[in-house]
Amino acid sequence: MKKIQGGVCAPVGFKANGVHCGIRKNKTKRDLSLIVSKVRAAAACVYTQNLVKGAPILVTKKHVADGYARAIVCNSGNANTCNADGEEIAEGMSKLVEEFTGVSAQDVVVASTGVIGQPLSLDPIRDGMPSLAEGLSEEGSDLAAQGIMTTDTVPKQIAYTFTLGGKECRIGAIGKGVGMINPNMATMLIFITTDAAISPAMLQKALSADVKDSFNMVSVDGDTSTNDMVCVLANGLAGNECIEQPGKDFNAFRKALNKVTTYLCRKIAGDGEGATKLLECKVTGAKGKNAARTVAKSVIKSSLFKAAMFGADANWGRVLCAIGYSGADVDVTKVSVDFRSRAGELAVCRNGSGILFSEEEAKKILSEKEIEILIGLGDGNGKATAWGCDLTYDYVKINGDYRT
Amino acid sequence: MKKIQGGVCAPVGFKANGVHCGIRKNKTKRDLSLIVSKVRAAAACVYTQNLVKGAPILVTKKHVADGYARAIVCNSGNANTCNADGEEIAEGMSKLVEEFTGVSAQDVVVASTGVIGQPLSLDPIRDGMPSLAEGLSEEGSDLAAQGIMTTDTVPKQIAYTFTLGGKECRIGAIGKGVGMINPNMATMLIFITTDAAISPAMLQKALSADVKDSFNMVSVDGDTSTNDMVCVLANGLAGNECIEQPGKDFNAFRKALNKVTTYLCRKIAGDGEGATKLLECKVTGAKGKNAARTVAKSVIKSSLFKAAMFGADANWGRVLCAIGYSGADVDVTKVSVDFRSRAGELAVCRNGSGILFSEEEAKKILSEKEIEILIGLGDGNGKATAWGCDLTYDYVKINGDYRT
Repeated sequence: MKKIQGGVCAPVGFKANGVHCGIRKNKTKRDLSLIVSKVRAAAACVYTQNLVKGAPILVTKKHVADGYARAIVCNSGNANTCNADGEEIAEGMSKLVEEFTGVSAQDVVVASTGVIGQPLSLDPIRDGMPSLAEGLSEEGSDLAAQGIMTTDTVPKQIAYTFTLGGKECRIGAIGKGVGMINPNMATMLIFITTDAAISPAMLQKALSADVKDSFNMVSVDGDTSTNDMVCVLANGLAGNECIEQPGKDFNAFRKALNKVTTYLCRKIAGDGEGATKLLECKVTGAKGKNAARTVAKSVIKSSLFKAAMFGADANWGRVLCAIGYSGADVDVTKVSVDFRSRAGELAVCRNGSGILFSEEEAKKILSEKEIEILIGLGDGNGKATAWGCDLTYDYVKINGDYRT
Repeated sequence: MKKIQGGVCAPVGFKANGVHCGIRKNKTKRDLSLIVSKVRAAAACVYTQNLVKGAPILVTKKHVADGYARAIVCNSGNANTCNADGEEIAEGMSKLVEEFTGVSAQDVVVASTGVIGQPLSLDPIRDGMPSLAEGLSEEGSDLAAQGIMTTDTVPKQIAYTFTLGGKECRIGAIGKGVGMINPNMATMLIFITTDAAISPAMLQKALSADVKDSFNMVSVDGDTSTNDMVCVLANGLAGNECIEQPGKDFNAFRKALNKVTTYLCRKIAGDGEGATKLLECKVTGAKGKNAARTVAKSVIKSSLFKAAMFGADANWGRVLCAIGYSGADVDVTKVSVDFRSRAGELAVCRNGSGILFSEEEAKKILSEKEIEILIGLGDGNGKATAWGCDLTYDYVKINGDYRT
């Protein structure tokens, strides 16, 4: 597998674009993005588990019910959630895509991210659609990545080549993390494209399995958004033999998919609202996979631990505490904790009790931008990794600022 | 019921004291407290659900296994948790109480609050015990309340009189909230005394029922401490007929107990680390009591909502979001949200969608020090209240500062 340029346009047959249409007041910020495949593509999605769901999610579910889609349209600046006319607006966005690109409205994936509960007008979208459609190009991934950003500080995109049955395939993605210019809901959106040929059912299977160890293991603030969505379009233009069942090709596809999703998990956590550090919590020795996930997620979500990491404080007691209340079946007398970064690695806890360590060394290790928290549970073979970030003054600032 | 002075010493037969013994470096801070009943008292406790439990909790469980106790000793500055010799130290504290007060070590409730995983020496406790015991007095509740404080900004105590079968009884309490001078674990400790006569079994029944709607409904940062403990001693010196079964007297006792615990919930939440505001989330119309509790707790724990309250931002979308991911069975199309404070009351959401409101009015209401969030679920008779506080720069500061 090789990293390549081009993001969502790296796979054959995808074009993209992003423009400013006026949903956001700041004219330098793009707020409407479009990705179009040359042909209909197998489509798989996973959505937020929140009972309060953005209207675009309800509409997208209908549009991909047949397993296929051809385009993804997404606006930032407004989540189109908790609005009485939300579904109508989301359908209207799809119809505008049909009008200006020829893609059937039924084949459009719709997404929105931004403030909840503010009416979204179709007017700016109607105004922006002609130039959005006209500007679609194979170099458009970066513009599309910009158009879905909210408080993200950098656009996020990635692409790899990989091989299926001797054929070279490509997989690319754009994503956005957490926060808003008018600070509101953390809403994660990930759009993945590939030219691999794979059936809708197998694509869904690959995606659903992958998110358990990728996006579901990311937490910036523990708030599950109303608009989270991960969508993969696979248009088959690479010409490989279509993946219809489990086997070697399916495994190779899953590996490529996981490469892309893991990259984006790290990017999103590291760019979490106000974050100065990426935290990667690696749990081993758990009684099972689920116990490992539960422990890793609990530690990465602890406000006290996140604040300690901001202060480069080797406060391992907070790690033990978060393990203890995680709900996982853990023998606390067997727990070990180490901190690791580019600056070194340090053991701080063995058998559930503290050991002597150099505070100076700890401070050096924890002052780096990427910190690994290594937890050994000594009780089995379960492993999991979770990604998060530190809790900082800027998180409070971004989310405490007056909305209007 | 009448509020009275005296805290834990308001009930007949209780003395208390608090001294500085040297566990904390700052000599102006008391760090060792003692409460003693003239006679053995029925004792009931509830403890943290964290699998990682402070050593004092393990020792206390043994000492109150017979349903009785006579004294409570508590240090601040060190949690005596994740230490290999923790239980030995906690037993040592009990023996020192016996040596200097004559109370059997087996009748001592032991508690510690402070940094996790740092060895606790008995030396300062041995040094401080003579003056601690000698200074026990009926005016000592305030000193005892000070001795258990960590990052609390004010000591917390309360007392009420109430009547059981024509006899006047008293109930008092001291408590500490969240945080540390060497910032570490949020650890809540509540010590309640009463001169009412009640059997150990009925006392435990009253306490276990009460905490479901009182202390278990408080959240400052979602981190469940390793050392949380609520303990009630009932010494029977009021001379009422001993409560041995459910009935009128038991209900009157529960009411008095709840008055004390609710007062402390509000005090603890309002004095949460870095807090500028007390948040009180009142849910009505839930399908059941548990659904109401789940929703109220979810909203009060949301970092995004807490940051919005810090900014006096009427961002009700975050309330809806937290309801949606709470896990409770809720019909989101029936949800209503109002904000209320001394400055007024404002409807912001009806039937799950936003309604027009004055941002100016909202800002005025949310700039007060005590905010009520009123959530109607329109789906039953379940009610619950949860208490919390806003998320502020100071929370990050307190918990991000370097530990050493």
